[in-house]
Amino acid sequence: MAIITLTTDFGLKDHFVAVLKGSIYSELPDAKIVDISHDIMPFNIHECAYILSNSYKSFPKGTIHIVGVDSEETPDNKHVVALINGHYFISANTGVIGLITEEMTPEKVVEINLPDSIAYSFPVLNVFIQVACHIARGGTLEIVGKPFDGLHKLREFAPRIVEDGKKIIGSVIYIDNYGNVITNIRKNLFEAYRNGREFKLLVRNHKIDKIHKAYGDFIDYDQEKNQRKGAGDLLAIFNSSDYIELAIFKSNLTTVGGASTLLGLDYRDTIMVDFE
Amino acid sequence: MAIITLTTDFGLKDHFVAVLKGSIYSELPDAKIVDISHDIMPFNIHECAYILSNSYKSFPKGTIHIVGVDSEETPDNKHVVALINGHYFISANTGVIGLITEEMTPEKVVEINLPDSIAYSFPVLNVFIQVACHIARGGTLEIVGKPFDGLHKLREFAPRIVEDGKKIIGSVIYIDNYGNVITNIRKNLFEAYRNGREFKLLVRNHKIDKIHKAYGDFIDYDQEKNQRKGAGDLLAIFNSSDYIELAIFKSNLTTVGGASTLLGLDYRDTIMVDFE
Amino acid sequence: MAIITLTTDFGLKDHFVAVLKGSIYSELPDAKIVDISHDIMPFNIHECAYILSNSYKSFPKGTIHIVGVDSEETPDNKHVVALINGHYFISANTGVIGLITEEMTPEKVVEINLPDSIAYSFPVLNVFIQVACHIARGGTLEIVGKPFDGLHKLREFAPRIVEDGKKIIGSVIYIDNYGNVITNIRKNLFEAYRNGREFKLLVRNHKIDKIHKAYGDFIDYDQEKNQRKGAGDLLAIFNSSDYIELAIFKSNLTTVGGASTLLGLDYRDTIMVDFE
Repeated sequence: MAIITLTTDFGLKDHFVAVLKGSIYSELPDAKIVDISHDIMPFNIHECAYILSNSYKSFPKGTIHIVGVDSEETPDNKHVVALINGHYFISANTGVIGLITEEMTPEKVVEINLPDSIAYSFPVLNVFIQVACHIARGGTLEIVGKPFDGLHKLREFAPRIVEDGKKIIGSVIYIDNYGNVITNIRKNLFEAYRNGREFKLLVRNHKIDKIHKAYGDFIDYDQEKNQRKGAGDLLAIFNSSDYIELAIFKSNLTTVGGASTLLGLDYRDTIMVDFE
Repeated sequence: MAIITLTTDFGLKDHFVAVLKGSIYSELPDAKIVDISHDIMPFNIHECAYILSNSYKSFPKGTIHIVGVDSEETPDNKHVVALINGHYFISANTGVIGLITEEMTPEKVVEINLPDSIAYSFPVLNVFIQVACHIARGGTLEIVGKPFDGLHKLREFAPRIVEDGKKIIGSVIYIDNYGNVITNIRKNLFEAYRNGREFKLLVRNHKIDKIHKAYGDFIDYDQEKNQRKGAGDLLAIFNSSDYIELAIFKSNLTTVGGASTLLGLDYRDTIMVDFE
Repeated sequence: MAIITLTTDFGLKDHFVAVLKGSIYSELPDAKIVDISHDIMPFNIHECAYILSNSYKSFPKGTIHIVGVDSEETPDNKHVVALINGHYFISANTGVIGLITEEMTPEKVVEINLPDSIAYSFPVLNVFIQVACHIARGGTLEIVGKPFDGLHKLREFAPRIVEDGKKIIGSVIYIDNYGNVITNIRKNLFEAYRNGREFKLLVRNHKIDKIHKAYGDFIDYDQEKNQRKGAGDLLAIFNSSDYIELAIFKSNLTTVGGASTLLGLDYRDTIMVDFE
């Protein structure tokens, strides 16, 4: 039985998530449901896209991913299902699936077209769950919709390259649980333009000339303990999703603060790479 | 194997929920446990009743629902199990089960009477889990308790009808993750008294004369874009549980605010329907 | 198939937990994964130790517990696996496993030594999950590491005994969802030194001379209602993990406050027991 994942902005207090799970188990007693996140900021499709695109590849092929963020159907945002790299995504056409297709061409995309197409107050329940269960039972996409090719894109995830590739102008796309600041600059883009040159990462008034591969290699344990870098120091790292990330070593937002609060960085703020 | 659901005010940080799950799996390795919510406000049986009554019907019959809110047994609040519409509810007699019985007469209610009836510091673990596992293994209610008929009711969920049915005086019973304000006025009650008449919904100094069926039908996509209603506008809707709900379209409590903060509405505040 | 539990400081919003679950299900489709907590304060190994030590015993023997708090390997904090009382623990050597070994001698401890021992930015995923799946498939600890005997201890969990056992000087080790204040003084230590004597529990300027066995027995229902203790009153209790805990009856941190806010108690503050 396929896995069904849930990524929503419903929060964990209300009954919405439980209603989805109860409905799925009522149709498919052997379903395996996995929560990706229910704490997306309400209607924030960029957060949703970042989290889903970083999660889905860990799941086995055949997994069905339900996206419950900004899921009302509108003339611009049709309900769609996409099959990408063996994974199914069910969502309104907000751009969330569009981000995933930037890395991988979809095998198939359909616009959902269920027989009882009335206005629902809870489309994730009334539409997406039905489609997910249909797919989980082995049903085809052709039954639930018709071919579609207008997936929206999210512009915010694309850094700008300027001065003939001498600079990359990126921006903050996510701030994680530790206050780490994630930029939209990925390792492969960085390396493609770097081309062996020295570089400076310009963040507020900080200049950083090294991007670490792991938090652990930030500290040189061969140094004397009082000489070492450690808790409270700023570092840049390619995070586990290969984005450039700014972190305060062992940060804690509720006590000492994290990179977001200590650098004063928020969504959409600018980070620049300058190749010399 | 039956599903066991958990609805508690334990929060997700502490070890309490994990202890329940570990204990259930130790007794029933094949149990399927579903979290309804663990973020009920401590001791708030009204929130608990709202969330559980809106969730339980989505689950298959035979599901066992454990209520871990205000679960200390007292002379007034005995531990009880009720079988209602094929679902089992295990709770202290706080009124939570009483709300569910307003829609549906219970098939059976017993007061729990386990052999080792000493004072426990964790009754959900020491009493409710034992009873749930007993039921999941096919045991009868007669084994765990004796017939009981004094289920408490929750008065707050009943709106008042005044002026010969010309007005319904309701109140706020819940505020959800989006700051949407849920009233205790349900669609069937509203329609029964409306009887074809025009109406006004009086909320603070707002008068609303339309209750939508879905968030989506609030916007008239045939209008010019700058004429349309949209993000930030107030609407009333019959929510997916058929309660009248006040919402700010695409609200976000942590940024622009939601209906609760923008209208200044809190639990127990009054909302009135005036039929003309 | 063994249960795999997760105890982390990843939070529930980010994609980290989902990535772990997807990876486990990709390797072991029939795995049963249980969240113990993902809301440990970042890098707070004391909270982690308190929560895990109070949870793990509820799970069946053979369960594999993954600890995702402060999990970077350093020269001082090697990655280790311990088999204790039939349970497997996979963690950096931060002291979390050390707390569990204070009650129970480990059957086996190894330092993890995987073939590809490069620096990872996500060691819980890259190391711990591999080890957990190996164990779940029946693999031995000898395959993943070499014997190890330097488990770190956590000093904060040990109260001091002074004045020839006339006083126990304890401290606050945890504050729970209700604002209840948990001390590091356990029932068996308390009783061993009490030795039948009267006692006073000194908390700020309060003196408490009774420690209850349950919240419920705090109230004497034979008294008149207006004479009874009740909501808002301070009590001491041996909690369900047998630690001395200070609680405000029916407290709620977001409304009336809890013991932590009303007594002004925080982590590491002192609580004293004085035997007379």
